[in-house]
Amino acid sequence: MRKDIDILVHEVGPRDGLQSIDTIFLTEAKLEWIRAEAAAGVPQIQVGSFVRPDLLPQMADSAEVVRESIKIPGLTVSALVPNLKGAQNAIAAGAHQLGVVMSVSEAHNKSNINRTVEESLDGFRQIVEYRNEADPDRKTVISGGLATSFGCTISGPVPVSDVMRQAERLLELGADRLNVADTVGFANPKQVKDLFDELFRTVGDDVPVGAHFHDTRGLGLANAFAAVEAGVRELDSCLGGLGGCPYAPGASGNVVTEDMVFMLEAMGLKTGVDLDALLETRELMVRHLKDEPTQGTFVTAGPPLGFVPATAA
Amino acid sequence: MRKDIDILVHEVGPRDGLQSIDTIFLTEAKLEWIRAEAAAGVPQIQVGSFVRPDLLPQMADSAEVVRESIKIPGLTVSALVPNLKGAQNAIAAGAHQLGVVMSVSEAHNKSNINRTVEESLDGFRQIVEYRNEADPDRKTVISGGLATSFGCTISGPVPVSDVMRQAERLLELGADRLNVADTVGFANPKQVKDLFDELFRTVGDDVPVGAHFHDTRGLGLANAFAAVEAGVRELDSCLGGLGGCPYAPGASGNVVTEDMVFMLEAMGLKTGVDLDALLETRELMVRHLKDEPTQGTFVTAGPPLGFVPATAA
Repeated sequence: MRKDIDILVHEVGPRDGLQSIDTIFLTEAKLEWIRAEAAAGVPQIQVGSFVRPDLLPQMADSAEVVRESIKIPGLTVSALVPNLKGAQNAIAAGAHQLGVVMSVSEAHNKSNINRTVEESLDGFRQIVEYRNEADPDRKTVISGGLATSFGCTISGPVPVSDVMRQAERLLELGADRLNVADTVGFANPKQVKDLFDELFRTVGDDVPVGAHFHDTRGLGLANAFAAVEAGVRELDSCLGGLGGCPYAPGASGNVVTEDMVFMLEAMGLKTGVDLDALLETRELMVRHLKDEPTQGTFVTAGPPLGFVPATAA
Repeated sequence: MRKDIDILVHEVGPRDGLQSIDTIFLTEAKLEWIRAEAAAGVPQIQVGSFVRPDLLPQMADSAEVVRESIKIPGLTVSALVPNLKGAQNAIAAGAHQLGVVMSVSEAHNKSNINRTVEESLDGFRQIVEYRNEADPDRKTVISGGLATSFGCTISGPVPVSDVMRQAERLLELGADRLNVADTVGFANPKQVKDLFDELFRTVGDDVPVGAHFHDTRGLGLANAFAAVEAGVRELDSCLGGLGGCPYAPGASGNVVTEDMVFMLEAMGLKTGVDLDALLETRELMVRHLKDEPTQGTFVTAGPPLGFVPATAA
C-alpha cells in the first residue's frame, strides 16, 4: 500500500455496480468515470470482469477498459477473473491485480459458478501457475476472494472454520492477498470483528486482507468500521452505491464509496481521496444512468461544520 | 435495567419522530402505536414532550398519552421536559422518566431554547429539587441529556472536555442517568467510541448512560455499534426512522429501530424485542402517515436465512 494513506479504498463500481444494472455504459463512459475517480485520489479501481461477453454484455469491453486504465498514473487497476481464460486475457490486457472469487459455501459456489469449491480451488491453482509463468516477477497481484464468508442465501450460516480453512488453502496455492466478502449482505459488525480477528490470528498480520460489504440491511458502514477496528486496511465500495436499491428486496448494493470515505476521513484515517472531487465524479457517473437509483447520504448532507478530512489535515 | 435483556432499546418515535413531521397523530393513533410496540417487547418508549402546546401542537396531548401509557404492563414511559413547568406536568401525569435536554454547545443551546448553558443547568437543578420534594422515593427517574455532544451546526466541533464537564455537572445536580446525543448527525464511530470511553472513565461505570444517534450521514448504526463497543447499554431509536428523509438535506432522523434491533440481536445481544411484531407495529404506525416517507432496510430485506435472534435463542 502507498505510504501516504492509512487505508486503501478499492472502488468496485465499474464492475460490481455496472453488472447489477440494465443501462449499458459505453467504454468511453466507463473511462470517464475511472479517470475522474482516480484523479479524485481513489488509489485502486476494479474496472471490469473477464467473463464471457454473452453472459455479461456490460463487461464485454473489459480488456479495452483495462488497457486504457493502466495508463492513468498512480492507479492500481484490478479486474475480476472467473477462470484461467479470464486470467490470461486480464494479464494480456495489463491488469495490475486479478480478483479470483469463490464462495466458502459449497451450495452457493455450485449455484453461482457451477463448480465445487475444490474445483474452484483447482482453478485458482491454475491461474497462479499461469501468472508465475507469464509474469515471473509476479508483478500481477492475485487476490483470493472468499464470497459468502458471513452467510449464504442457500445454506444459511457459514462456519468461521470454513472461512479459515479456505483462506489458508488460497494462501498455500499462492494468493498474494485475500478479500473477504459479505456477498449477500448477511454480516453484522460483531461477526465481522470476530471473523477478522480470527483470520489475522490464522494467517498472520502480514497478509494484506481486504473486505467487501453490501448494505442490504443497513449495516455496510457499521461492518466496514468493525473491519477497520479488527485491522483491515482495504475496503471495497461503490460510488453512489450503484446497483443497490433499498426499496427492492434483495437488490442491495455495495457500501457507498463517498459515505465510506467520509467516515474514514472523519475517523482520522487518510484515504488520499478528495471528497469534493469524488462527488463531482459521482455526478459524471450519474449522468450516464437511465432509471437506476443511486444511494448515499453524504451527497445530500455534505460534511459537518468544521470538518477537516484526515487527508487534508 | 431488566435482567432478561442485555441492552435497552428506547423508542423515541412518538416524540422525536412525530415532532419532525406535519401529520398530526390523534391521541388514539399514538396509543395504538405505543401499545403495539410495547407488546412487541420494546421496554421503554418516549411518548411525548411537555412543551407549550402552541409551540408544538403535535405534542399537546402528552399528558393524556402518558396517563394511558403508564397502564401498559412492563413499559417504562419517558417524556421530554424542557423546564420546571413541563416536569411538574409530566410528574403529575405519572411519567416514569423525565428527559431534560440541554446542548453542550453554548451557541446551540442559546439558539434552540434561548438559554445559556448555565441557565439550563439551573433549570435542571430546579427540576431535580421539585422531583425530590414531590416524589421523595425518587421513583421518577431524571435523565440529563447532552445535546450536540459530537458537534454543532452553529459552532462546529465540540470539545470532549466540555461534554465531560457538563456530564459531571448534571450528575452533581442530581441526574440519575445521562443521555449523550448526536443531535445534528455529526458523529463518526471512532469519535463515539473515544467519547464514551472517556465518559465512563470520568463518571464511572455505574452511571447508566444512553446514546442518541441521527442517521444524517449514514453512520447511525455504525455509531450505535461503536457505543455498544464502548459499553453503552441503552440506545435511542425511531421506528421506521420517522422524521428523517435522506433526499432532503438536513432533514434526517433517528436511527431506525427495527434495523438497530436486528443488528443488536444478530450480534447476540438480547433486546427483548420480537422483530416480527415490531414490523407489524411499523405497519400500524405507517397507516397514520400521509406523505411522510419512512426509512429502513430490514423491512424490505428481512432477516438473513438461518437468523436466530438472541432474544429467541
